[in-house]
Amino acid sequence: MNERLISQLRFLLEADKMKSLYRQTYIIADEARGASMRDFEGDASLHRRRENDAEHSFHLALFAMILAEHSNEDIDLLRVLKMVTIHDIVEIDAGDTYCYDTEGYKTKADRENAAADRLFGLLPDDQRDEYRGLWEEFERSDTAESRFANALDRMQPMLLNYTKGGVSWKEHGTSADMVRERNSHIADGSEELWEYMEKCLEDAIGKGYLKV
Amino acid sequence: MNERLISQLRFLLEADKMKSLYRQTYIIADEARGASMRDFEGDASLHRRRENDAEHSFHLALFAMILAEHSNEDIDLLRVLKMVTIHDIVEIDAGDTYCYDTEGYKTKADRENAAADRLFGLLPDDQRDEYRGLWEEFERSDTAESRFANALDRMQPMLLNYTKGGVSWKEHGTSADMVRERNSHIADGSEELWEYMEKCLEDAIGKGYLKV
Repeated sequence: MNERLISQLRFLLEADKMKSLYRQTYIIADEARGASMRDFEGDASLHRRRENDAEHSFHLALFAMILAEHSNEDIDLLRVLKMVTIHDIVEIDAGDTYCYDTEGYKTKADRENAAADRLFGLLPDDQRDEYRGLWEEFERSDTAESRFANALDRMQPMLLNYTKGGVSWKEHGTSADMVRERNSHIADGSEELWEYMEKCLEDAIGKGYLKV
Repeated sequence: MNERLISQLRFLLEADKMKSLYRQTYIIADEARGASMRDFEGDASLHRRRENDAEHSFHLALFAMILAEHSNEDIDLLRVLKMVTIHDIVEIDAGDTYCYDTEGYKTKADRENAAADRLFGLLPDDQRDEYRGLWEEFERSDTAESRFANALDRMQPMLLNYTKGGVSWKEHGTSADMVRERNSHIADGSEELWEYMEKCLEDAIGKGYLKV
């Protein structure tokens, strides 16, 4: 038992690094509260910051719980929650690849496979197989659960970016076509959610958040 | 449909504030990666920082998935995952109360009930009832799922604090008795996990992390 528990705790402590891996999306709330004034040396404006992988994964889990009814297909919500919680864990070794970075995408698969070997390998064998399997399923996006999880993984940053005035799109000079092409896959998991996000996209174009 | 979806999205966007609510526990990894150098104005040492509620909730979900087998009783893991994901959402309005702050605890229940009314009230009625019910169950800690969720909610900060050299305990002058009294309730959810954490506590005392 003890050896098994120690393997599990090693994995859980390693996952703490998700809290230090920053993505391209900004969080909505600018004002930090609680202990933050000291953490950011009294300057709350430093808190206008990007989202990290732990926060993104938390938010996806909440999206999955609340929006499950909008999935095109019947889903096992427990499998979706497990999937979204671990889907980005390979980035601890492989780093975040910005979704419109075509160069970075060439080496993404190799880097992420090596990361999956090491990270899921920290777990006892049965759990290594289960969670690596869920990660591979998410990457393939060929089941009802993984299609819905991937839809949320695209919808959440798009919704944050839209709510935040398109700040990340403007920084990268992202075009409306790029956003439409990438995010139209939301419809594979949920046509209802993509229908709504398409309206956000039209509105974003009208407001000049995206290059046309 | 649309009105229902808009209620759900309002709740999900409100939950973004969890990313700006800081707790007393420090994250383990000091070095921020990715976009952080710019976010923290080039000074990575600013990233030695406390954990926020979104990160804590993410970590608890992962703890629940990986450690479920150590629960004293049979549990419905889906209910545990829903519970740990929403258990701190009332802090958006009510703030974090440090677990050894006896003054703050006097008004905690009133503040959190008002917060629950407003926050879960953003959801459609059926989901408001489900998630408020899960939050109340977590607070009462009177079912197998809520006992296990509460055990993890105590174990996770204790494990981070121990791994980090007791930095938060030292800051607050926390005594070994206080930590033992509060965290011995881990045994209500998992005797195996408490047995392990008791060894960490003995080691922490030996290393001078806690007032004796």
